Amino acid sequence: MTYRELFGQIRKKKSFLCVGLDTDMDRIPKHLLSEDDPAFAFNRAIVDATLPFAVAYKPNLAFYEVLGAAGWESLKKTVNYIRSQSADVFVIADAKRGDIGNTSEMYARTFFEQLDVDAVTLSPYMGQDTVAPFLAFKNKWAVLLALTSNPSAADFQYFEDKNGLKLYEKVLETSREWASPEQLMYVVGATRAQELAKVRKLVPDNFLLVPGVGAQGGSLQEVARYGMNGYCGLLVNSSRGILYASAGENFAEKAGEAAAVLQQEMAGLLEDHGLAFGTITSE
Amino acid sequence: MTYRELFGQIRKKKSFLCVGLDTDMDRIPKHLLSEDDPAFAFNRAIVDATLPFAVAYKPNLAFYEVLGAAGWESLKKTVNYIRSQSADVFVIADAKRGDIGNTSEMYARTFFEQLDVDAVTLSPYMGQDTVAPFLAFKNKWAVLLALTSNPSAADFQYFEDKNGLKLYEKVLETSREWASPEQLMYVVGATRAQELAKVRKLVPDNFLLVPGVGAQGGSLQEVARYGMNGYCGLLVNSSRGILYASAGENFAEKAGEAAAVLQQEMAGLLEDHGLAFGTITSE
Repeated sequence: MTYRELFGQIRKKKSFLCVGLDTDMDRIPKHLLSEDDPAFAFNRAIVDATLPFAVAYKPNLAFYEVLGAAGWESLKKTVNYIRSQSADVFVIADAKRGDIGNTSEMYARTFFEQLDVDAVTLSPYMGQDTVAPFLAFKNKWAVLLALTSNPSAADFQYFEDKNGLKLYEKVLETSREWASPEQLMYVVGATRAQELAKVRKLVPDNFLLVPGVGAQGGSLQEVARYGMNGYCGLLVNSSRGILYASAGENFAEKAGEAAAVLQQEMAGLLEDHGLAFGTITSE
Repeated sequence: MTYRELFGQIRKKKSFLCVGLDTDMDRIPKHLLSEDDPAFAFNRAIVDATLPFAVAYKPNLAFYEVLGAAGWESLKKTVNYIRSQSADVFVIADAKRGDIGNTSEMYARTFFEQLDVDAVTLSPYMGQDTVAPFLAFKNKWAVLLALTSNPSAADFQYFEDKNGLKLYEKVLETSREWASPEQLMYVVGATRAQELAKVRKLVPDNFLLVPGVGAQGGSLQEVARYGMNGYCGLLVNSSRGILYASAGENFAEKAGEAAAVLQQEMAGLLEDHGLAFGTITSE
């Protein structure tokens, strides 16, 4: 999917919601456990309920890998199902891979050929060698970790040079030269809204994938205030707040309601920023 | 496996060789492609041929993930096969995972419960939250990326603070407080032998997993000179130089020969350092 197509979907659905598919066998409704493929059965119902309100889905690889080979099948069926329901939804494999050379090429083939997702989250530690093989795929994206919202993000991401430049800023400054905003997004945690403004200055045009709204306690208003650009430039993820809105048989209905609440709030924010209506300006 | 057991194996086999299982369908001998599970058939033959000379195996996850669910089965069968042939071999999942919270817990369960490996390679970018869930497993190990040998390692690993401390040194200084050397190793590239000496000063007791001998051009003598400690403290990996020593039907025989050459050189280096014979000193 291209940058403009993604922005087009955001305007069409009046939403920049990404639904995180952290599908946990210990948390899905008990009645699904007797299904042939409980993870897929859960995901299919979640997708059906949330698709009107979401522009992106983000399966979290760990939750599928823990199920072994069967988990990979569940993941593949989930991606295929999303594709079958809509050709215009953005799918991110939240894999946080970070290797080099032919290993990184294998990961790119895994996610873009085996699974046919649009984007993969990557760790910057090994530098450009990690990212380059993913950029070789046309209209596919790398989503690079920049500033995360976990407590120990400070261990290294705030490490700073003699000019006060922090590692996460260095990552942004360096990596923005590797690809255009058409292929490169950044993960930026929502719990540090002031820093979102600094990030936005460094990468004015790139999409930011923002986790941490909901279970991790970020504020959507703050994220939009500091992070939104002229093409929205945001995908805000919610996982548990949607997936586990109810543990009962009505889980999908409640997930849809939770997604709709976020979409409504997002529609208002897009309108506030003049992005809900009108035409896409030329670049 | 414990630190002392690993050292015991090194002394017994007079080897600190780790065989990297970067099993590539485009490079394994053509006659294996008609097998039910070519990746496993190849790995089984490689393990049979190299087990007398190697103390560790390191399957590289990307090469299995690219095969989808079937690849996970090949990987699981490979780990089980190694276990069936020897209870005393160290198995490292080269996965370079790096996530947090319940996601990191899922990865730990994936590798230590689903797959039953001894160790997993991890990326430090998100800090201690990435590593902690792996340390909760008794006698299991985290192998943290510190200094890698790829060209773009310099993009961020050499980022330095006002005192000249580089990021990779900061990673070592900080992370060595998270766990004892009984559970924490570091990936340190072999192409920078001088830096190996700096690493060894910062983490005198930890094992270092050293890739880059062979295809990436490091020298085993240099690695031992700067990196060896009183418990050896090194696992030196070779992948392609062993796996693809021959593309013919004699691939396993040639792999065994390549591993034996490295083991012989390692035996000499252990002897030079007074580690080939004698008893394990108490701590």
